[in-house]
Amino acid sequence: MEEVDHLAHERSKAQFDVDAMKVVWAGSKHALDVADRMARLVASDPVFRKDNRTMLGRKELFKNTLRKAAHAWKRINELHLTEEEASMLRLFVDEPSYVDLHWGMFVPAIKGQGTDEQQKKWLPLAYKMQIIGCYAQTELGHGSNVQGLETTATFDPKSDEFIIHSPSLTSSKWWPGGLGKVSTHAAVYARLITDGKDHGIHGFIVQLRSLDDHSPLPGITIGDIGTKFGNGAYNTMDNGVLQFDHVRIPRNQMLMRVSQVTREGKYLRSDVPWQLLYGTMVYVRQTIVSDASKALSRAACIAVRYSAVRRQFGSQDGGPETQVIDYKTQQSRLFPLLASAYAFRFVGEWLKWLYADVTQRLQANDFSTLPEAHACTAGLKSLTTSATADGIEECRKLCGGHGYLCSSGLPELFAVYVPACTYEGDNVVLLLQVARFLMKTVSQLGSGTQPVGTTAYMGRAQHLMQCKCDVRGAEDWLKPSVILEAFEARAVRLAVNCAQNISKAASPEEGFSELSADLLEAAVAHCQLIIVSKFIEKVQQDIPGHGVKGQLQILCNIYALSVLHKHLGDFLATGCITSKQASLANDQLRSLYSQIRPNAVALVDAFNYTNHYLGSVLGRYDGNVYPNLYEEAWKDPLNDSVVPDGYREYIQPVLKQKFRASRL
Amino acid sequence: MEEVDHLAHERSKAQFDVDAMKVVWAGSKHALDVADRMARLVASDPVFRKDNRTMLGRKELFKNTLRKAAHAWKRINELHLTEEEASMLRLFVDEPSYVDLHWGMFVPAIKGQGTDEQQKKWLPLAYKMQIIGCYAQTELGHGSNVQGLETTATFDPKSDEFIIHSPSLTSSKWWPGGLGKVSTHAAVYARLITDGKDHGIHGFIVQLRSLDDHSPLPGITIGDIGTKFGNGAYNTMDNGVLQFDHVRIPRNQMLMRVSQVTREGKYLRSDVPWQLLYGTMVYVRQTIVSDASKALSRAACIAVRYSAVRRQFGSQDGGPETQVIDYKTQQSRLFPLLASAYAFRFVGEWLKWLYADVTQRLQANDFSTLPEAHACTAGLKSLTTSATADGIEECRKLCGGHGYLCSSGLPELFAVYVPACTYEGDNVVLLLQVARFLMKTVSQLGSGTQPVGTTAYMGRAQHLMQCKCDVRGAEDWLKPSVILEAFEARAVRLAVNCAQNISKAASPEEGFSELSADLLEAAVAHCQLIIVSKFIEKVQQDIPGHGVKGQLQILCNIYALSVLHKHLGDFLATGCITSKQASLANDQLRSLYSQIRPNAVALVDAFNYTNHYLGSVLGRYDGNVYPNLYEEAWKDPLNDSVVPDGYREYIQPVLKQKFRASRL
Repeated sequence: MEEVDHLAHERSKAQFDVDAMKVVWAGSKHALDVADRMARLVASDPVFRKDNRTMLGRKELFKNTLRKAAHAWKRINELHLTEEEASMLRLFVDEPSYVDLHWGMFVPAIKGQGTDEQQKKWLPLAYKMQIIGCYAQTELGHGSNVQGLETTATFDPKSDEFIIHSPSLTSSKWWPGGLGKVSTHAAVYARLITDGKDHGIHGFIVQLRSLDDHSPLPGITIGDIGTKFGNGAYNTMDNGVLQFDHVRIPRNQMLMRVSQVTREGKYLRSDVPWQLLYGTMVYVRQTIVSDASKALSRAACIAVRYSAVRRQFGSQDGGPETQVIDYKTQQSRLFPLLASAYAFRFVGEWLKWLYADVTQRLQANDFSTLPEAHACTAGLKSLTTSATADGIEECRKLCGGHGYLCSSGLPELFAVYVPACTYEGDNVVLLLQVARFLMKTVSQLGSGTQPVGTTAYMGRAQHLMQCKCDVRGAEDWLKPSVILEAFEARAVRLAVNCAQNISKAASPEEGFSELSADLLEAAVAHCQLIIVSKFIEKVQQDIPGHGVKGQLQILCNIYALSVLHKHLGDFLATGCITSKQASLANDQLRSLYSQIRPNAVALVDAFNYTNHYLGSVLGRYDGNVYPNLYEEAWKDPLNDSVVPDGYREYIQPVLKQKFRASRL
Repeated sequence: MEEVDHLAHERSKAQFDVDAMKVVWAGSKHALDVADRMARLVASDPVFRKDNRTMLGRKELFKNTLRKAAHAWKRINELHLTEEEASMLRLFVDEPSYVDLHWGMFVPAIKGQGTDEQQKKWLPLAYKMQIIGCYAQTELGHGSNVQGLETTATFDPKSDEFIIHSPSLTSSKWWPGGLGKVSTHAAVYARLITDGKDHGIHGFIVQLRSLDDHSPLPGITIGDIGTKFGNGAYNTMDNGVLQFDHVRIPRNQMLMRVSQVTREGKYLRSDVPWQLLYGTMVYVRQTIVSDASKALSRAACIAVRYSAVRRQFGSQDGGPETQVIDYKTQQSRLFPLLASAYAFRFVGEWLKWLYADVTQRLQANDFSTLPEAHACTAGLKSLTTSATADGIEECRKLCGGHGYLCSSGLPELFAVYVPACTYEGDNVVLLLQVARFLMKTVSQLGSGTQPVGTTAYMGRAQHLMQCKCDVRGAEDWLKPSVILEAFEARAVRLAVNCAQNISKAASPEEGFSELSADLLEAAVAHCQLIIVSKFIEKVQQDIPGHGVKGQLQILCNIYALSVLHKHLGDFLATGCITSKQASLANDQLRSLYSQIRPNAVALVDAFNYTNHYLGSVLGRYDGNVYPNLYEEAWKDPLNDSVVPDGYREYIQPVLKQKFRASRL
């Protein structure tokens, strides 16, 4: 095929230094370099091809993923990759597998919850993958409510062992990735019972399969839980079901960093603060926010490029039709998503800092910022994953009919992404936690306790409850202080309204439950404020590179004003802005779309994604979409023959009236 | 497995006659009876099983669909089913196949666009399925803009034939269902050229494959366009690609009802009004609205039942946890969708009437209501399909993690449904057509031309521009007249605002294009008003059955007030209601949720869906979810063996450090 850059004209229009923006997106020159090398390494290796993924049956698909995981491990070792490089390489392999849970959940569980001794024993085995582990928490009947888990771990003082048992069908472990077919070990969460007393949920390291022949150990039943959403997507993963029939493990396989069971069966708390466990949660959710920006930016990259390639209507005098990216309807749906990808990137970067800060404080026994950090990460996890899932689907629709083809990459991206709205805390449950924290913060206002961190603005509640937005012209909506105050006022007013309404209820619990739908909206407003404010902070930093800062300013304003437009009801109902000001915000938004338009393709180029990672014919770097869509089509197994399998049995008899004989 | 109705307690709480509601939902006693018989017929026939669908590879899947289609045809003939019964049977087979396009597009194309003579020749063949047809309109590079199609049909007066040709890669026909592997014929849309003159797009009947051995005829290249979104979903369909290399067809295979080419090559318009073609569009879109209510009601049925089964948090003193349907957060997401399913059902019923009315008028050469009917069906198609696609995904999320399993039925329902947002008119393009019609209507206000049908309210623009909502207490929001006026005022104000802003632009076209995002919102407001008003009209009819009307009234109010809440920005920005009134609407909504709660399960029972049609373990009638989820899991092919295929090659070497030799 000819090598022409069909998007060259778009690229030539960019008003900023794309290479400098790549560094901003990656976080640093070093991070860009590592990502770039690993992405190319994966893209150039035929074992890692992805284009055939959606055509494979479940078994073939799964086996092929095992092959990729093994090959990746081989390459990681052969090339002596650093931990950073290895994790980047796994990212670009871009296929869910047991490896994710081994490194992302099993190893951290041991690190976070194991004693020094336990870490010394288990971590080297895990690091070398001499054992492969998963994280067995959720059960068939129990998801979000961890305290409701049924699996028991009963201490038997006679043998110095725990007996792990599944007392019911609903107590079957269900969902853990890597469990179904691969893991040899699991971090299992169960109710600890000593001497008839239930101490609640604790973690245990349990060996599941023989290291000789991989068969499940006695008393252990394991299987895969079946097909999931999407063609490839998470069907490459062996999410599993697990039942224990009185399985015995040594006492020292309880993860004992925070609490212990002694040889005599005594239950003790160690002097390690239990709050440390929250630190892990902050860490995991921070990575989820960072993944959200990756997923949304991939979708936006595909949709932006194809919107520049695709033409529809508006042909004048037989000339070419209009590029769909030039339609305001397309811009008003697409550019807010592009801006969101950048917004989530920067808030994710900030969360990384927050995690480091929290960790440092925890080590110094300072727990003062933990509740705020916990609420903030929970809320941002919820908000960014919901917006990303919806955004990917919106990008698919923005690609018209062809977005429905797997070769567009978007159906897979959606199906593989959406579980993020549910795992590691259901998004609604998390927002309610944020709301609870906000209500507590409101109740303490005026008590002398100053709100900290991302809730600091609530300390100015008195001002924010009655301030008036002073926008008089559309250009006023470009001022960070104006935007910030509008978002702060909206968040504080929604929260205070909720608190006032709750106080009218028979009891706070009843009020909270009755008003929970409103509370969700207050929590969303708080989280959107965080994102807006972190984007503004980012843009106020020194950012090198011709025009880079200017583009980020535009994106920041698009993000803020499009959120304002979408949630206009909040801003108006709380009197934060007037209808006239809302209309001016809309005018400004249209103008911002026009400003970003010539830079759109370059702004997605800045993500520096390879064609392999994007996995989308519509999102190809060179924009040469149609010949490649055509070529992809012929690879479908159905095209192995011109006359389909089944013709003689099921088509010919219809055409030849074989089924109508009775009537003729 | 024990036969217990786990939802019996829920059913006993219902405050209305479910059987009477079944009749309301079905439309009539007769319709209910037919649907019931056909649903049971399909459910009891093992050939029609669906539960294994998501585990099959593409080829097996497709062959199995051919088998079902042939079997359905056999049964239709054996049982001498009526047309109504046959189409119900096809509905319950619930698997996209070539049959849909043959009956839904190919036959109607001949009926609508063929001359009497052509109908006489082709329809009997099609009715007996001696030929199988598809509808070949969209091309690789051309979707929404039909006038941009590139395929040519050039009249050759020497041979009295048309030469059908694909002049470029982008002119390849692309997407037609049934084309790839099955259809023997197609209605092909191409630019008609006579004597060097281009007459625009016309339809032609073209034979594609030999009726002897099914191979493509000379000059014709056909294939399948590849995998699409979802596991089964539209992968059961052979959406196809088709290229013509100077393929000749007889002149009499141009569909000549509206315009003709004579033996001499003269292009003539017949005396049949071209507007008749619009009638077909109204018909097709009306069926799409009716399908939307089916799809959304299925999803709502699954989510409501599982929300009653599932318990999470809130256990007191070790008792059972709270049913998730009792949480306000669940109710505020779920019940508006349940109400929407009913709302779409009734507006669909009304559209059927509208189609009959339009047809009658057309036959009497009365075209006066056509533009309004066309705008109205276009808008309702757009609105209901978008809301349904989003609603199915929301229902999936409302089922928590298990909604991600294919055995929940929801991933498939989503993937098979979403194309409805794109086919038969992209939803955004359609809304812009509505907006254009609204702008025209506004411009004619005061000119003496009275707006008709669903735009009649615009005749009261003067009042609606300045009326004030007189809600003073939450109970005022139950008055149909109050709701109606608020929706009318919002719609008219948004439309008039747009018109005023457009008039400030350099030209109307420029203004329309610049403000198109606002115009979409005005179009949505207009369409939501239609749905609300048709629901209100329905509820004002005589409806037999204990408590039935009362439930519908509650659902109608939930629909209206939840739409109001979602689009609060519109209502406030246009001054239709005050913040205080918005807050009262919210209070009323919460109260309505409490009222519908005890009836929720019975309200989805009223859809009368079989377990087979629902295809969801979570939505089972008996609520016996967990043992069945467990059983389903073991059917996955990955569970054929305990140790997975690939263990020796790809897992054992990792565990045994085979890849680390270089480093050790």
